[in-house]
Order: sequence, then C-alpha cells, then structure tokens
Amino acid sequence: MPGHTMSLDAAYAAHLDARDPLAHFRERFVIDDPDLIYLDGNSLGRPPKASLALAGDLTRRQWGHRLIRGWNDGWFEAPERIGAKIAQLIGAHADEVIVADSTSVNLFKLTVAALRAQPGRSHVLTDDLNFPSDIYVLRGVIDLLDKGHTLEVILSSDGIHGPEDDLRAAVDDRTALLTLSHTAFKSGYTYDMAGLTSAAHAAGALVLWDLSHSVGALPIDLTAAGADLAIGCTYKYLNGGPGAPAFLYIRRDLQETLGNPITGWMGQQGLFDFNLAYQPAAGLRRFLTGTAPIVSLALIEPGVDLLLEAGVDNLRAKSEAQSAYAIGLWEALLEPLGFSLNSPRDPRRRGSHVSLGHAEGLRIDLALIDAMNVLPDFRAPDTIRLGIAPLYTSFADIHEAVTRLKKVVTERLFEKYAQKTPTVT
Amino acid sequence: MPGHTMSLDAAYAAHLDARDPLAHFRERFVIDDPDLIYLDGNSLGRPPKASLALAGDLTRRQWGHRLIRGWNDGWFEAPERIGAKIAQLIGAHADEVIVADSTSVNLFKLTVAALRAQPGRSHVLTDDLNFPSDIYVLRGVIDLLDKGHTLEVILSSDGIHGPEDDLRAAVDDRTALLTLSHTAFKSGYTYDMAGLTSAAHAAGALVLWDLSHSVGALPIDLTAAGADLAIGCTYKYLNGGPGAPAFLYIRRDLQETLGNPITGWMGQQGLFDFNLAYQPAAGLRRFLTGTAPIVSLALIEPGVDLLLEAGVDNLRAKSEAQSAYAIGLWEALLEPLGFSLNSPRDPRRRGSHVSLGHAEGLRIDLALIDAMNVLPDFRAPDTIRLGIAPLYTSFADIHEAVTRLKKVVTERLFEKYAQKTPTVT
Repeated sequence: MPGHTMSLDAAYAAHLDARDPLAHFRERFVIDDPDLIYLDGNSLGRPPKASLALAGDLTRRQWGHRLIRGWNDGWFEAPERIGAKIAQLIGAHADEVIVADSTSVNLFKLTVAALRAQPGRSHVLTDDLNFPSDIYVLRGVIDLLDKGHTLEVILSSDGIHGPEDDLRAAVDDRTALLTLSHTAFKSGYTYDMAGLTSAAHAAGALVLWDLSHSVGALPIDLTAAGADLAIGCTYKYLNGGPGAPAFLYIRRDLQETLGNPITGWMGQQGLFDFNLAYQPAAGLRRFLTGTAPIVSLALIEPGVDLLLEAGVDNLRAKSEAQSAYAIGLWEALLEPLGFSLNSPRDPRRRGSHVSLGHAEGLRIDLALIDAMNVLPDFRAPDTIRLGIAPLYTSFADIHEAVTRLKKVVTERLFEKYAQKTPTVT
Repeated sequence: MPGHTMSLDAAYAAHLDARDPLAHFRERFVIDDPDLIYLDGNSLGRPPKASLALAGDLTRRQWGHRLIRGWNDGWFEAPERIGAKIAQLIGAHADEVIVADSTSVNLFKLTVAALRAQPGRSHVLTDDLNFPSDIYVLRGVIDLLDKGHTLEVILSSDGIHGPEDDLRAAVDDRTALLTLSHTAFKSGYTYDMAGLTSAAHAAGALVLWDLSHSVGALPIDLTAAGADLAIGCTYKYLNGGPGAPAFLYIRRDLQETLGNPITGWMGQQGLFDFNLAYQPAAGLRRFLTGTAPIVSLALIEPGVDLLLEAGVDNLRAKSEAQSAYAIGLWEALLEPLGFSLNSPRDPRRRGSHVSLGHAEGLRIDLALIDAMNVLPDFRAPDTIRLGIAPLYTSFADIHEAVTRLKKVVTERLFEKYAQKTPTVT
C-alpha cells in the first residue's frame, strides 16, 4: 500500500477496508454467516441479492405467468444479451460473445471448428498448466476427427509459471491452434495474452483462450490482443450460480467461416420453418446448440451487472492489492510454518487467487473447513487456493483466513483429519 | 367415455372433470390466470408450486448459504438422482438414465458413439416426421466423422402417420442406426417402439428414440422394447422449466462400450486428481460433459415427482380420454369450419397432443393468443397443436378452447391479423 507500511494486525486490515472504494459492493451479496470466511469465489461466486429476486421472478412470473410467451419476452435473446455484457468485461464487441452450453462443450465446438478450418495444419499446442479437462477435450477432438492431428503439451518448469518461451518456440507452420488458460487454475499464473497471440499469428496459427479463471477479476482485451477464439465460465468471478452456462467468443471476421459441429435446434436460421435442411443462423447464434437452461442462464446477468458497475480496472486494482496483502501475510506468518507460495510473486503474472503449498495441505484444508469456518479450496497434491473476489472479499477476510490458517498449523488442529481425496471441494 | 354419450355442452366437460381421479393435481401447479386456456404444456409445461419454493431454496440456502459445499450436498449426484426418477417414467433401470446438456447435444453424443462403435455399418435411417433439428444433428455428425456414412430420410405418405412399413423394409445389414421421434412433434403420431426396435435388431442395427414428445404423457417401456439409446427433453410434459437440461438413456450393457466424444470435466473419473490423461467415469457419468446448470437441473425434480405420484398409466388414460374428447369436439364443431384433423384417429398411435390444420391456421393462432387468451402453439404451414398435459389440463380447458376457436372462425376474428412467421411460439 503506497504510503503505508504493511502491518500484521487486524486493525490494518480494517484500515484497508475503510479506504476501499469497492467495499460497499459487499452489501449487494447474500452473506448470511458473518463468521464464515469465503475464499472460494474463484470456484463458485456468491449470489448477488438481486439474483434471489430474479429467481423468484423467473419461476413465478416469467415461467408461471407468461408461460411459453416468455420466449418472446427475452428468453430467446438472452444468450446474446448477456453475451454482450460479458463482452464488455473482456474487450470484445457485443456481437462477438454468446452464452451457451458449458465450458467443455464450447471448447469442443470451437476446437473442432478451428481444426476443420485449417486442413493443412495438424498440430495443437497447449501446456500442462491448462485445465486438465481442456486437454481431455483437445485429445477427444483429435481422436474424433481422425485426421492425424497431434497434441503437444509443453511442460512448465516449476508448475507455477507458464512456459511462455517454450510455447513461443513451439509454434510453427504446422500449428493449427494454440490454446491456453489465460489464468492457470492452480497457480494463478497469467499469460501474456497479446504477446502469445501475436507469436501464434506470426506462424499463421489460431489462438483460443480459456478465460474461466480470469474473467471478472482481470482486465482482458481480446480485441487489442487480436484473439481469435475464447471460452469461459460464469460461475466463478461472474457469480452466475452453480454450473451456470458458459460463454464463447469468436472474432467477428471468423464467425461466418467457422462451423458448429453440433448443428442443433437453437443454432439454425428460421427455427419455426421446420425445414429438413439445416441453415446456420447469422453471426454467433450458429454456435448455439440446443435450448439453453433459461433459469440458470438468466441468473448470470445480475453478477455481470455488478462487475460492470464496479469497473474491471477498479476490481483489478483491489484484487492486486489484496493478493499482495495475502502474500505479505504469508511471508510473515505462514512461510515460517512450512507454506510455500505456489503463485507468481510478480503481480503482472498473477491472477486473483493465491495458492499456498504445504506438505499437510489436504488435512489443513479439511481442518479449515470443518473447525475454522474458512472455505478456501484444495488442489491436489498440496495446494490451498485462496480465491479473492474483489467485489465482496474484504481485507479483513484475508487477515482472518491467514490467522485461522496459522492457528490450524501451530495448534496442529489438522492432525485429527485423515488423509483422503476430497470429493468436490 | 364408457356409459356416456358425448355431449357438446360445457356441463359435460364439467361432469368429466368431476369424475377425473387426477383432477386434484391441477392445484399443485401455478395457475394465476383462471381465464387463460393453456394448451402448450407439450412445449413448455407449467411450473409445479413446489418449484417456486425450490427455486428460493436453491438460490438462498443451497447457493447462498452452503456455497461451494452445495456440491457435496447433492449437486454432484443430481444428474443421476433425477435421471433415476425419469427412468421410472420410461421403463429403464435407475442407472440407465442421466440428466445432461440439451437434447441436441445428447443426440450428438449418442449418435457419434453409436456410429463409431460400428465401423462396418454406414447407414443412418430416420423419417421426415422426426424433429428437423434431430436430422440436422445426424447430418452434422456424418459430416464430422467423414467416414462415408449416408443418411436416409424415409418420407411419410401423409405427413401424419409414420412410415413404419417403409422403415422396417429399409433396415438392413448396412444400417448402423435407426433413430426416430417416439411421438412425432407435429402430428403426434406414436411409433411401435417395440416392433421397430425388434426389426432393427434383427438386422443388427442400433436404435435411438427421441422421447421428447412422449415422456411424461405416455407409458414407455425401453427395457421391454430392448431399446439401445434414447434422449428426451424435460421442459414439456415433465414441467422442468424453460430449457431445463435433457436426459439420455443407454442400455446397461452398452454403457461401457460406447464413448462420449465430448470428454469434458464432469465425465471423467477422479475429477480432483487433475491428471492430464482422461479416464472416463464409471457407468453413465462418462456421458456427462461440463458442469450442469444446477438451478435449472434441480428444478426438473418437482415435476417428475408429480408425474410419478400420479402414475404414468393413469396419466395416459386421462390423456387418451381428453384427446378423444378434443377430437369429438373437432368433428362436431370444427370440421365443418374447414379444420382438418392432422393427428392419428387411432388412439394407440396418438400421443398427447391433437393437431388441427386450417388454411388460415396462422392467423387463427394469432387471434386465439391475442384476442381469446388461449395459448396453443402453431407449426408451419397450417397446424395448430392442442397440447394436453393430463396433470393439469381439464376437460373444461378443452371445451373452452374449442369454443373460442370456433368463435375466432365464425366471427372471422382472425382477419385483422397479418400473415407472418411467428418468432418462437
């Protein structure tokens, strides 16, 4: 904090909260357990209060009263309407983003489209910091197409920093697609989107960014980067609700040349003509598949509205201050207890979560949840992720989480928990 | 009605309602406009009252209070738990049905799986009463696989009755897959599932049934039919809400041999191991793709519970009586006004909606909605569908709809409406 020396006491956290211009956004969220320290907004964001009212309206009035007429009242356009708002968060044009399906299905559709559009290129490039199921989808697409594509997974040297130099060196005239997580799910490493996109373009390859762990927390400028394709999820920093539908981005000039391999009901032109021949809808609608789950889809909007109201640059400034604060507390209080910092120290390369490793990470995580009313999340084999959602995470949350984390270790409260694989958290 | 001669007056409809053993289920639904005649439950079912309370619980308590812990409280298993209930409606075992994605995406996954499992067979067979986007998906899969598959679309002779004899004759040892809508979306024609499945099996082909327009209204016995694959939607007679996720069925002995082409996050074994190599989950979970939209998914359950409470055989008995009643009224009151019956007269071949054709069908439909507070739906070029949802449609609804329909034509109320293509209804 400029002009202040960081202090380890709670009063300093309170001081930081008092001067936080975004602090008032916390009141816009459902927070019904004031003792709970929730640091998993990077996995499932909290519900905006407006979403509770909207859920009632969606079921009672829109579905119950308007019935099938709801489709003419806004359901039909909701994927584009909400997509256009998400576009503002990621530096895209309004007609370049649409909400559809899940992140996995969108990655599948866009990867198939990208590979089919470049029959002369056989290489798909990613790295091992990418989300594992993104890699499964890539392998699945390659198997399905059965055209001899190869997948190269570049390895990070330390599991924390993305192998950007090796990726740049690996892109060549065989590369059809470079695809990476913009912010890595485990370490939070954040890639040089513009630089890597530019390197791939120099070799004639397309680039697909998975924005799941950065959208809503970091400024993203797909247009400035010249990005070709992107996907992302809405239930993390966007606060869209559990499993809320994902989004996809296709740069405007590519939209008419790429084809959706899942030629379903909602992606066609003239739905109610009932022609037996498929005609893709104009623009991005062709990348819709079946009917969208309207209740879950519509619930994305209040969270996105709050992010837009707060402003992505403001959110980033707060998130950067908060992750720096968390790292400061780690260095003073947790490193001596055997915690490693598994996130980049360089704030330019860091997303909005801070990962801490510990040999007893899993049992410490279980103790935090069970005995300390702290909800971070755990990523095997040893990493506790502290997710910072700048719309509602307070500096006091971070201070209290570190305090409780320290207590779990110094009082060895974790020892009563058995080593086991967590199911979902 | 045995023992009664059908009468055309409203008192007779009231008499039928008074002796309807399912009549009390109507009170379990949100019905806030008593004047509205809703005959589009075959497109979007009404919300059960229980769904309103559930939506509140899902957002405030499950999402808002439990936060990420919701995944351990039942969200993770919801696709299987609700699938097992749907299984009871369609004569499947509990572990043969799972809720996932949309109908289009599920058809895509199962068609790809079926064709890849039978490399020696190149033929896909369907008919022109199938839902058009099912045919788009089939063509899309064939294009994508690029293995020389051919699609044959057998034509119905009258657009009303399924070409069952021609389908039986067309299945041969080249046929990989026969796929049909169990109940046709436009005419309501309902196929001999067991007979056609058996004919396809005799030729060594797999069969995939789209149950979207029959599930929840007709008894279905996939096990007795020996069906291989099925898909279906949950927002029609299942009352799951707009765009609620779809389901898929794979016969138990096929589950381990078929592969999901979309190898996403939720279909793997050991989600939290974060291995870079995909291992499909056991059983049907391998046919999940990304994270399910939990709010929309969970809202499927109350409607299915009501159907199970009522009993499918009871629902069918009522639906059959109601469609016969509608056809009786048509014959007496509407046929003389130029309406044709575009559904089968044979109740064994009829689903739960009655389609009426008229040269002025579109304008009549617009007048019904706008001036008469009747909501049927319209299918180009000339068909008004009267959807009967036996859980909440009353005989009085049907009588009143026909009365208002007659008024629209006899008083030529439709003339003020312009011919235009409806957008969604």
